[in-house]
Amino acid sequence: MAKKDSELGEPVAGNGLLHRRFFLQSGAVLAGMAAASAAAQAESIGVGSPPTMLKPGAEFNAYGMPSHWRDDIKRILVTNAPPARAVTGSSRTPLQFLEGTITPAGLHYVRNHNGTPDIDPSKHELLIHGMVRAPLVFTVDSLMRYPMRSEIHFMECAGNSGGISGAETPQQATAGELHGLLSCSEWTGVKLSTLLDEAGIDPKATWILAEGADAAGMSRSVPVWKAMDDAMIALYQNGEPIRPEQGFPMRLLLPGFEGNTNVKWVRRLRVMSAPMYTRDETSRYTELQPDGKAREFMLQMEPKSVILKPSFGINMQGPGYYEISGVAWTGIGRVRRVDVSADGGKSWAEAALTEPVLSKALTRFRLPWLWNGGPAVLMSRTTDEKGRVQPTRAQWVAQYAPRQNFHFNAIQSWAVAADGKVSNTYV
Amino acid sequence: MAKKDSELGEPVAGNGLLHRRFFLQSGAVLAGMAAASAAAQAESIGVGSPPTMLKPGAEFNAYGMPSHWRDDIKRILVTNAPPARAVTGSSRTPLQFLEGTITPAGLHYVRNHNGTPDIDPSKHELLIHGMVRAPLVFTVDSLMRYPMRSEIHFMECAGNSGGISGAETPQQATAGELHGLLSCSEWTGVKLSTLLDEAGIDPKATWILAEGADAAGMSRSVPVWKAMDDAMIALYQNGEPIRPEQGFPMRLLLPGFEGNTNVKWVRRLRVMSAPMYTRDETSRYTELQPDGKAREFMLQMEPKSVILKPSFGINMQGPGYYEISGVAWTGIGRVRRVDVSADGGKSWAEAALTEPVLSKALTRFRLPWLWNGGPAVLMSRTTDEKGRVQPTRAQWVAQYAPRQNFHFNAIQSWAVAADGKVSNTYV
Repeated sequence: MAKKDSELGEPVAGNGLLHRRFFLQSGAVLAGMAAASAAAQAESIGVGSPPTMLKPGAEFNAYGMPSHWRDDIKRILVTNAPPARAVTGSSRTPLQFLEGTITPAGLHYVRNHNGTPDIDPSKHELLIHGMVRAPLVFTVDSLMRYPMRSEIHFMECAGNSGGISGAETPQQATAGELHGLLSCSEWTGVKLSTLLDEAGIDPKATWILAEGADAAGMSRSVPVWKAMDDAMIALYQNGEPIRPEQGFPMRLLLPGFEGNTNVKWVRRLRVMSAPMYTRDETSRYTELQPDGKAREFMLQMEPKSVILKPSFGINMQGPGYYEISGVAWTGIGRVRRVDVSADGGKSWAEAALTEPVLSKALTRFRLPWLWNGGPAVLMSRTTDEKGRVQPTRAQWVAQYAPRQNFHFNAIQSWAVAADGKVSNTYV
Repeated sequence: MAKKDSELGEPVAGNGLLHRRFFLQSGAVLAGMAAASAAAQAESIGVGSPPTMLKPGAEFNAYGMPSHWRDDIKRILVTNAPPARAVTGSSRTPLQFLEGTITPAGLHYVRNHNGTPDIDPSKHELLIHGMVRAPLVFTVDSLMRYPMRSEIHFMECAGNSGGISGAETPQQATAGELHGLLSCSEWTGVKLSTLLDEAGIDPKATWILAEGADAAGMSRSVPVWKAMDDAMIALYQNGEPIRPEQGFPMRLLLPGFEGNTNVKWVRRLRVMSAPMYTRDETSRYTELQPDGKAREFMLQMEPKSVILKPSFGINMQGPGYYEISGVAWTGIGRVRRVDVSADGGKSWAEAALTEPVLSKALTRFRLPWLWNGGPAVLMSRTTDEKGRVQPTRAQWVAQYAPRQNFHFNAIQSWAVAADGKVSNTYV
């Protein structure tokens, strides 16, 4: 299957998709894109210094912020209010403006049920009790003495992309508005199994109630197998203490599980022999099926992907070479491959995955595309390490009752028009 | 060499260093640390809800910030001023407060020579000229069409840790104050070789002048081999557009090379047949040797490490189990191993490295330690994939003339006193 370099310019799938190694060829494959005004510009060296070279710049600061030229890059607010205070709802990550895989903490999505509490870390306590040999209380200071681990993991709300599952007409909105309850961080903390071992967990215990110190008392039941596997009490996010909106001073981290179970501001873990059926396990976060029965405790996020370049609002700038780029993920482990289609799913080409491909982390995929200026429908499809494949929207919808909108992981389709405009489409 | 679990509690080096897998043993190895007040606390469930559960929390915001409870975590300002404006000098990363390997962009170290320019990205141009077939001009918009790559790399100023090389008495300062001209980010951008290929670089060219659009006109000569290897025009840092202090809208990224050569706000790359010998290649950033000759263009950063927990200001809290933790790095590729000593270098134990160990990136190392409450001297020593080893301070100092303080990469020693206080020491 290995292609010679000389063959890489040949399309590998319909509508201009090229081999993932095409851009690695040497030579002026993109020539003409920027050469037009070059000669004239080259003459002005030393003559036309930009204004920033003519006077000293800004002084140092204690904590840096993004450029004011890009203040359009901000979290996208979606709440049940006004007129109520905006404490219940979500703010989303503007995925279409981001690159790579790490989400800056300031743009991490937030799903709050009653606002972000302001917790004095010196007063915060985490209690482990219930079916344990000895109930224990941990403070931030005591956890600082424990062994820690650092891992990069995505976080996705179970309700992410829910606007696509139910609406009969495709909503015209950005990737962030549609799929932005999704972020990825380097988390550092203490393995939960270390703390449970210390408390002496009863072998008959099967579930753990995790409760947050917010005004919603956000509570979820977590299986003991997950708590003893890769769960963590996270204290740091992207190197620094976890941000208030993500659970300062500590949160439960359940890699690959739906966001809501990663209880923020976690204050209590009660070890039990059955799930608690909290409000957020009955009123929502269950999946209604066509027969009227609800799937409960469907906690693991499914394989999924979304193309971000191009996407709604990130339009094409005339025919020529482009790089299609997006993110892929799965809650069970590693992304094995991502396939991309430019002809609405008739043919597919395998995208390049940015190394290292990490378990339960966003994976950036990229594929060269020679756009001929005609209409196209772009799709991406993740296959994970267990061989599970993202379904089409029709396949996904058939699994559930009409208004079910949790765990939507169907293929996202973007239609590209001849004028370069990109729109959300159902295929 | 593999140890049985039952043997992991035995010290593997002097003064209480334990096997790197010790904490992986199941069972209550840390028991007693948090159990004391647990029984009493467990009785109060449902009685003493914390105040944050009793009223709604804060509303959503467009761009999140760290908790005000940790406003002590900020960049450490070191400038030549006052009374001049603080535009020349550096601000450092507070390493001792951070965990994992990613530095949040707001805490990335800054070394400015005349302030941070405020650049309108729609007006910024990158010119490639000199020994090329066709000079080319790239804008942010045109670069957005190019293939990109995302890589995690450290950045370190050549002058980092210079306060230790020359001072005869060890300065009592935090890890950030001493070694904080060091940060690590996920960078995304266009491979420089793609742009040079397109411009058609002359085979006789050996150096490239990179010039920034700041008021210092910061300029450095870069070898063509590096430019064609892994150099990048970086547009994104930790997922979002690069911050103003790190080069918005674009910087040259030379993974593993001294920070100063990673020219920020890069506006011009002139392809040449010899280095330019700019001001920053003659007045500084050369290394004076004992014979009075200066080493020039010593660009690659050497293998290095620093223990952060414990370190100056991060003191011990009584005898017992601790995790020693710090960061290691090398400019030539991957860290192969990190050894830790608790007896001032008489004996060493191999630390665990957090996976994945990435090329030219910070690597977090960790090692269990049973501190007996007596005096100890902690050291860490990196060996990189080429087998190069961090020297002792005495070995390093012997290589250079007295006041030379660039490329200091000697072993950092922290003395732990019986009262738990940690101080900087020379051994």
